[in-house]
Amino acid sequence: MADLGRRARAAAHVLALAPTPQKDRALAAMAKAIRDRSAAILAANAEDMAAARQSGVAASFLDRLELTPARIAAMADGLDVVRGLHDPVGTVLEHWTRPNGMAIERVRVPIGVIGVIYESRPNVTADAGALALKAGNAVILRGGSDSFRSTRAIQGALAAGLAEAGLPEDAIQVVPTQDRAAVGLLLQGLDGAVDVIVPRGGKGLVARVQAEARVPVFAHLDGVNHVYVDAAADLDMAKSIVLNAKMRRTGVCGAAETLLVDRAAAATHLRPLVAMLLDAGCAVRGDEAVRAADPRVTPASEDDWVTEYLDAIIAVKVVDGVEGAIAHIERHGSHHTDAIVTADAHTAETFLREVDSAIVLHNASTQFADGGEFGFGAEIGIATGKLHARGPVGVDQLTTFKYRVRGTGQTRP
Amino acid sequence: MADLGRRARAAAHVLALAPTPQKDRALAAMAKAIRDRSAAILAANAEDMAAARQSGVAASFLDRLELTPARIAAMADGLDVVRGLHDPVGTVLEHWTRPNGMAIERVRVPIGVIGVIYESRPNVTADAGALALKAGNAVILRGGSDSFRSTRAIQGALAAGLAEAGLPEDAIQVVPTQDRAAVGLLLQGLDGAVDVIVPRGGKGLVARVQAEARVPVFAHLDGVNHVYVDAAADLDMAKSIVLNAKMRRTGVCGAAETLLVDRAAAATHLRPLVAMLLDAGCAVRGDEAVRAADPRVTPASEDDWVTEYLDAIIAVKVVDGVEGAIAHIERHGSHHTDAIVTADAHTAETFLREVDSAIVLHNASTQFADGGEFGFGAEIGIATGKLHARGPVGVDQLTTFKYRVRGTGQTRP
Repeated sequence: MADLGRRARAAAHVLALAPTPQKDRALAAMAKAIRDRSAAILAANAEDMAAARQSGVAASFLDRLELTPARIAAMADGLDVVRGLHDPVGTVLEHWTRPNGMAIERVRVPIGVIGVIYESRPNVTADAGALALKAGNAVILRGGSDSFRSTRAIQGALAAGLAEAGLPEDAIQVVPTQDRAAVGLLLQGLDGAVDVIVPRGGKGLVARVQAEARVPVFAHLDGVNHVYVDAAADLDMAKSIVLNAKMRRTGVCGAAETLLVDRAAAATHLRPLVAMLLDAGCAVRGDEAVRAADPRVTPASEDDWVTEYLDAIIAVKVVDGVEGAIAHIERHGSHHTDAIVTADAHTAETFLREVDSAIVLHNASTQFADGGEFGFGAEIGIATGKLHARGPVGVDQLTTFKYRVRGTGQTRP
Repeated sequence: MADLGRRARAAAHVLALAPTPQKDRALAAMAKAIRDRSAAILAANAEDMAAARQSGVAASFLDRLELTPARIAAMADGLDVVRGLHDPVGTVLEHWTRPNGMAIERVRVPIGVIGVIYESRPNVTADAGALALKAGNAVILRGGSDSFRSTRAIQGALAAGLAEAGLPEDAIQVVPTQDRAAVGLLLQGLDGAVDVIVPRGGKGLVARVQAEARVPVFAHLDGVNHVYVDAAADLDMAKSIVLNAKMRRTGVCGAAETLLVDRAAAATHLRPLVAMLLDAGCAVRGDEAVRAADPRVTPASEDDWVTEYLDAIIAVKVVDGVEGAIAHIERHGSHHTDAIVTADAHTAETFLREVDSAIVLHNASTQFADGGEFGFGAEIGIATGKLHARGPVGVDQLTTFKYRVRGTGQTRP
């Protein structure tokens, strides 16, 4: 493992200085290699699938593990998308001149070596490798044990693409063992060889990474997201946003888990919103006022206000205006993504200012919490930590910066 | 300690929303309170000094601990300087509109709660408290045990200033015990109440904080900074920059510790540079080529290339051009601050691009590694970590950001 880290660091030095066209040639060659080797990748995946079936895992697990020709094509297309993104490295973020004539600029540079720990979704191998490469970083990938053969086959294609463009194959490495102790070593940072860890997967994985990592982590543990419907909300807009935020896809981290309704609108807005959710097949758990609005509502417990269902279930509560909504969100939320629906601009600004979440929205669905929807092109995840990366983590967030100072002989008095 | 954390978090919520004029009124009242209470602060400091003298600490320690009327005035003036800085909170860093009409902006917000751990320099209490406040953060301060009475007296003045402006006194708290276990609890983050730790002090303190902290740390452990004098350097400029970088103040983290001289300039530049340093009272430890240049040079061991002397000592080595200099710096440096002196623009750009340090300079002294010299107004320290804050840590670096999204009813397809 220590050797893996040293090789990643050496590769990172090369990648940090690689010109954009060379990185893009590598990404193109990687996509081609994925397409050319699809039969071999499918064969490796079939072995993973057979072993997983024997171990009796759930059908949803098998679905995430399975590769098909269409999924392989999508993986290759994803590499092309990343190739089309702007290269963040070298972007001057700020520049100014000091009274003594020194010109200072803050310029984006790669972070270095990124560790990615994920579950048995083989496509993450290509996604994470490509995003890291575009931003000039080396990656060390550790996928789920059940996808080990698939991961190796995909990584082989990526390494071939790197080599074809004259870049070090060590820029995208896979942890060569399924030993769980290897994850522990990666989380310790491999003697300073790993700059940041990105976990991709369920809460158990993220919690372990956050608890054990000795290097910074870009992650979110929970997405307990709220939609607050204010008394000044247009009811039709509120219905459309609430339905989308909860039901478009219930399993994504940007899905709404709690609906807060202004007490001043309880008489007009509460019943139609709750009926709409129930009619759409969503279970509703509510406080007393919500249960009074519809007999199908079941009682909410204190746990419901802090639960990320990731399912067709929503907790609904009546609150006292925007301040009541903000207090509830600050107490129970996970600082991921929260939305207000209101036609009152002043109330909206209060919410946008006071809710301390990575993403706050006015009159838009929480399901926009996504790097693609933000225009980042692609993302490696969403972070709720406050430092460095907050919200969608795209290529820009996989860089850091340094200061370049150009003088003409200045010395400090 | 847990209660300390909870109160800091509650204060941080208030501070995050405090308008600039209110924070500035607090800073003005804090400066006035420091001035008004200077007799009481001096009395508290006299007790600290008496106890420290009895325990037989070094004279340099006593000098850092001692407050005088002039030092108290400087502390109050420092609060006025911070008051004059721009308020970073609310600054829109980027904004764009998506094809669906959603307007997205990335806006600066406070980090939250900052823990500052420092040695027995009472003035850090005021400096750190003021910078954190300006950026809308609460702080928990833990100064050295020997300065406990001074720290409490200063914090009392700061709290009075906060109260006068209607801000919570808990925004600037001092750990109320000298028990060393309290530092451990602070480094654990007080159950999520602390967002980042800033250590201010010597290597022992910083190393302990980096090893034990379970929250992010803004710090630098070493400042093994280099000046590389290229063959194309103007000798007079090289002499002036090297002398300033090493000797202006030898104890600051931006001081140069190693001089690298291009082999192609050894015949012309090495001897005058080494003689100048020796004549200025700087001990020179060199490789064979350097020793040949002046008989007063003593041999350098491998350790010298990685030593931060913080003293009138310099290690000098002859390297093969800019690539040799970069290789030496990447191998032995601490990624803090490194400079090249050359009249060749192409060589300079190679150095600025390839040296992976927080600050890289061309034709300027490494002693400019300072928030004030960068125009940040004030700094809480210098960071060599790659994430979030890198280089001088000023008020901007004590903020994070969030995304505000303004829509007109958008839902995600």
